[in-house]
Formats: sequence, C-alpha cells, structure tokens
Amino acid sequence: MEERFIVIYHIIGDKSTALEKAKVICLEQTVEVGDELVLDGFIRDQVIGELEDFFAITNGIYEAHISYAIDTTAYELTQLLNIIFGNTSIKAGIRVHRLNLGAGILSQFSGPRFGIAGLRKIVNVYDKPLLCTALKPMGKSAILLAEFAYQFALNGVDVIKDDHGLTNQPFCPFEERVKACVEAVATANQKTGKHCIYVPNITAPTTDIMGRVYFAKKEGVGGLLIAPGLTGFDTMRSLSENNEINLPLISHPAFLGSMVTNPNNGFSHAALFGQLQRLAGADASIFPNYGGRFGFSKKECQSIAESCKEKMGHYFPMFPTPGGGMSLENIPDMLTLYGNDVIFLIGGALYSRSADLGDNVRYFLSLVGRDTLRDTRQCVST
Amino acid sequence: MEERFIVIYHIIGDKSTALEKAKVICLEQTVEVGDELVLDGFIRDQVIGELEDFFAITNGIYEAHISYAIDTTAYELTQLLNIIFGNTSIKAGIRVHRLNLGAGILSQFSGPRFGIAGLRKIVNVYDKPLLCTALKPMGKSAILLAEFAYQFALNGVDVIKDDHGLTNQPFCPFEERVKACVEAVATANQKTGKHCIYVPNITAPTTDIMGRVYFAKKEGVGGLLIAPGLTGFDTMRSLSENNEINLPLISHPAFLGSMVTNPNNGFSHAALFGQLQRLAGADASIFPNYGGRFGFSKKECQSIAESCKEKMGHYFPMFPTPGGGMSLENIPDMLTLYGNDVIFLIGGALYSRSADLGDNVRYFLSLVGRDTLRDTRQCVST
Repeated sequence: MEERFIVIYHIIGDKSTALEKAKVICLEQTVEVGDELVLDGFIRDQVIGELEDFFAITNGIYEAHISYAIDTTAYELTQLLNIIFGNTSIKAGIRVHRLNLGAGILSQFSGPRFGIAGLRKIVNVYDKPLLCTALKPMGKSAILLAEFAYQFALNGVDVIKDDHGLTNQPFCPFEERVKACVEAVATANQKTGKHCIYVPNITAPTTDIMGRVYFAKKEGVGGLLIAPGLTGFDTMRSLSENNEINLPLISHPAFLGSMVTNPNNGFSHAALFGQLQRLAGADASIFPNYGGRFGFSKKECQSIAESCKEKMGHYFPMFPTPGGGMSLENIPDMLTLYGNDVIFLIGGALYSRSADLGDNVRYFLSLVGRDTLRDTRQCVST
Repeated sequence: MEERFIVIYHIIGDKSTALEKAKVICLEQTVEVGDELVLDGFIRDQVIGELEDFFAITNGIYEAHISYAIDTTAYELTQLLNIIFGNTSIKAGIRVHRLNLGAGILSQFSGPRFGIAGLRKIVNVYDKPLLCTALKPMGKSAILLAEFAYQFALNGVDVIKDDHGLTNQPFCPFEERVKACVEAVATANQKTGKHCIYVPNITAPTTDIMGRVYFAKKEGVGGLLIAPGLTGFDTMRSLSENNEINLPLISHPAFLGSMVTNPNNGFSHAALFGQLQRLAGADASIFPNYGGRFGFSKKECQSIAESCKEKMGHYFPMFPTPGGGMSLENIPDMLTLYGNDVIFLIGGALYSRSADLGDNVRYFLSLVGRDTLRDTRQCVST
C-alpha cells in the first residue's frame, strides 16, 4: 500500500489555526482518533492522511494538500467520498478545492462512457453546441408532454429531457410518459432525418431505479437523467459502468446546492460539478448558468466547464451543460465563454419566447450558428 | 389530489425580497417555469406550491410555510426530498426549518422499524442511556478489532459499531471483520448473559450493499450502520422497510455536514438529523455532540433530540445518538440535556482514558448510573 492520492482543501483561519485544522483533517478522515493513539507504525506511516503542502493563498485562507493511501478508499466511490470529506463536511471553514486522484484511483472507475465525442455521435451533431430542453411543467399529462417533445424534435432540439421533478406522479406515470415521448421523438426524427434523443428522469427510489432504467432502455430512450444528490453518486457510477444499459447519463444538480453555496465549506464548483460528476460517470453535467435565476458567477461557471474537459486520466471529457433561467440574449456571451463543446439547456425561455415552440427552437439554433445543412453530417452508405 | 404537506423555510432578506423568494420557491420546486406560463387551472390550483403563511421571525429572517400537493412527490422519498429542497438548495439564503408532512406523506413510509423501545428490547437495557462505541482505528486487522469488540462487550457496551470509515479495505476485509466481530461479541455475551450487538458498516457501492447486508444478516449481526449522505437517504429507507433484513439501522452523518453548517442554507439540525432520518427509517441517528470536536451548539443538539422523539404520525421515536470527540466529564451535563432515552456514542475517549478498555467502559457505565444488577432484566422462563 504505497500509492496515494491528494485532496486540496482551502481552510479558513490564521496560519496556526489553519495548520492545526489541516493536521486534524489527516486524522479525522481516516483513523478518527487523536494523534496520541496512533501507535502502530503501519497506521502512522500509511493509513493516516499526510500533509504534503501548506501555504497561504490569500489573507485568512490557506491551501492544504493532504495525501491518502488509495487502499483507504477500498476502491469504492462511496468510501472515496467519505475519505475526501465525510466527517470534515461537518466542520466549518474547510472546503474541498480540488482532487488530484492519480492513476491508482482513476483506474478503478470508468468515467464517462460516451463523453463529448460519444454523445455528439449519437445526436449526429459536430462542431457546434448542442441544444437541450426540458419537458415541463409538472402537472401536464404524458400525452401533452409528448406533443411538446414532438415539436421540439421536429424543429431541431438535440436532447429532450424530462424536467427533473417528473418521476412517476399519478398525473404523469413514468411508463406512459416514456412510451409517448419515445414515440413522438422517433416520429419527428423520421421526418427530419435527425437524431434527437429523449432522456427520461430515472431518479427514483433505490428499489425502483433499475426497473425504470430497463423499461426506458427497452422502449428506446437515448439517455438517462439522474440527480446524484438524491440517489447518491455511486448509483450514477453503477449505471454508467453497466454494459447492458449502455446509455449516456445526464446529471442534474438537485439537492446538491448546499455543497457549493457556502464559500467556506463543501466543494468548489469545479470539484463538485466537474471532477466528481465525471468520476461518477456523467456524460453531461447540468449546472446553473451565470446570469440566470441561480447565483453562480461567470468565473465559477468557467471553472466548471474547464473541469469537465481538462485532462483526467483516461476519462473522456464530458459536456458542460449550463441551464437554469437562461435567456436567449445571453447566448453570444456564453458562446465566448464555453466554446462549441457545450450543451445549452434552455427550458422556460423556449416555452415563453412565443407561443410557437418550433419558431423558438429555430431562433435559438440560429443564435448558435446551427442550421441543418451545415451542422449535420448526412449518413452516406459506403 | 387535494391533500397537501407543508415545508417551513427560513428566508434571509428584507420583507419584499424574502416574500418574492418565497413565491419563487412555489414555482421552482414544482413546475420550474415562470408564473406567466402557469396557464392550466389544475396546475395553478394544485401542482404549484402555495404560500400558506409568511411572517418575520427576527430582523432579516422570514418564515414561509409552503404547501405542496402530496401527489407531486409520487410517494417516493427521492422525489419528496426534491420537492422540499431540490433546486432551492442551489439558492443562497433559504433554509428548510421544519417539515409538517401530515398523514398523506407519513403513511407512505414506515419510519423506524424498531425505534427506542425495539432497540432497548434487543440489547435488554431499559430506563437508562445505552452505550455505543466504535471499532477503530482504521488500519487495524479484523482480528485486532474483534479483540476490542470482545473487551467492549465483556465489560458492558451495548452497541459496538464499525468506525464509519471501515468498509472493505484490503487490510480489513468486510466479511472477515464481520465474522470475527460477531463471534467475539457472541462469546462475550455467553459469559455475561448480556445482549450486546455488533453493528457493521454497510455503506458501500450501490451494487454491493445488498450482498454485504445479507452476509451480515446471515452471520448474525445485531444492526447495520449506514451513512445516507453517501448512499442516498432512500437506500436507508429501503433497508428499513425490507422484511427479510429486519435489523435496526444506525445512521451516520458523514458527507451530510454541508447541509447544516451554513445557517442560511440547507436544513435545520432538527430537520436533517431528526425528521429526515426518522422518515428514512433510522432507529438511531448519530450527530456531533456539543462541546466535542465539531461545532454544534447545545441548543442545536437539543433540537435534534426533541425531533427524534416528538410525535410524528405513527412512527416510533428513534434514539438521539450524540458522539464525536465526547469527553467522559461531560456526561452529567448530557444526562440532563438528553434524559435516559439516548445512546452515548463514545469512541476515542473509551480507548484513551487508560490502557484498560474494560475499566474505561465500567467507568462510563458508572457515570450514567448503570450496573448489571439494576439495568438488565434477567430473562425468566414463565
């Protein structure tokens, strides 16, 4: 047991306080006893966290690089998260800034199964941003949502997902919705020759998830939406690594917000919406865009996008998927920030711009330089 | 669809800002579209959240009572959590203070399977606090941990749990540990006539949990430890409601801390460590005690303890289980605060007081007025 990985924490306090906190993390995240009880040579030398580096990054904030033996994670995502931040999450003034996991950890997981290139191949759109929208509002019947899906697919949306609050409500049962939406999108695709996908929300009770996933797979969905804050990150990981399922996963941030809204606790935006999501197998990570109805800054969004695409072992890059009260007017600025490898998740604005959903979609596509002749490679038999 | 449940939020801001935030929550947690798009009568009348009450509780903090139709939860714990705080978790200045779930929601879940009375019956200790300790530190072999377990059980500990960082590490594999510790505790129980239980940590990857649970059940463990922050709350719920498993569940707070450490976001201590844990079927809820190495106040701990035991539909009360760097000197004060219906989780202090673990345990038991003649009802055949 020699290989180690590093977690970079940002710690609030004066130098001696922050240093003491860093030393306590080394114990708290592993042996959970005071240093005086660490008598065993193996435990002292290998099991406890080790402070590898410690320095000020600004007045009152210190950066601590703490390494842990990879064996302490038991090569389980649940236990890896526990080592990174389990008990320390309960302490004030400590934030996970970044993970440097190394080959020893990264090789134990698969990362995104499709990633940016794989998802582009499925929807057959290259070199331009993808457009995703959500079926809403909750309360509409499966048939009415499928009609929206048809209009969206017919006019060029690439990814049509359930609103993340749609699960299996009596007024819109899961199986009825999946059947209707798959059929609606397939019918539209036949007319357009495009490859729009329908992505149902399979966030569900532990004992129901696999049933819904297999039903959706059998019906022919093009991907799955999951909120790991509700199901646990490892449930997403297990779906990603399941060869029978073999579908792209889009991750939703519901219930995860408390992990980023306090700048002195939780995770950095990049670690939570970039690194952790990718580690757990998301092909696209939804996060609130700057300037929308959530409070993320442009810089925070940029850090997420970079984390989605940066070098991370053998893992495919995943799509940053900003959404959340985005206005169509912001598109030029967003194009500058995110580049082409992005999925724009536009929900309400596609419904509200005008009563003509199709026109709204076409208007959006024009804003990102998309038209069917330019951005879709026609399938040619060779 | 008429029955509704209520979530009480605390919202930061001046009156008009807080009121506007409350109105936005009604939409954000349900339909996720602007009010102008809620045209459908059914959706307006029933699906969207409804602000039932709104008033100042102190300068700059307002309390909003928002009701939701029970059908919006699809009667799933995952979706219930999503309705309560899914997207709103990402917004600053909004905290879930309390849940008033009502019979329509509570009747959909079972709550604690054993609760305080059931767990007391298993360990055969009545009318006094229970003593729980943790097997640690990580890095010890299964055999050495089982020796600790034997000493603890022999001297009167009621509940011996794995440290929550012990999962299936190469240096202490799960099955080896469970076998050794079950045997050690059974041997001690034979000598003492007591009913100490061993509670292994079954927090694990989604695809491994049930295998570990069934192995532990087969070996004869007395309960299961789970960290719902790592597995998702619904995984605990599913174990609690599983008749084949039929074991008490002890919930650990790892990875949940960010949901309480920011007073202006997340959940109140009582809602997170009391109401949610009980809803999800915990029989005992571990939380950091005041005065230990975490920052919870005495008042916060009291609110958790009250929430563990207050009237909550037909649910059994569950054991508040304060732990985390507790010193033996605090016991008298804790007895005053928590009363008799409490599990004291004492880890490090039982190891560090002296090298004689048995003496440490007996000293603790004397502090809470426990002796074997007084607190154990002998089994008498009738």
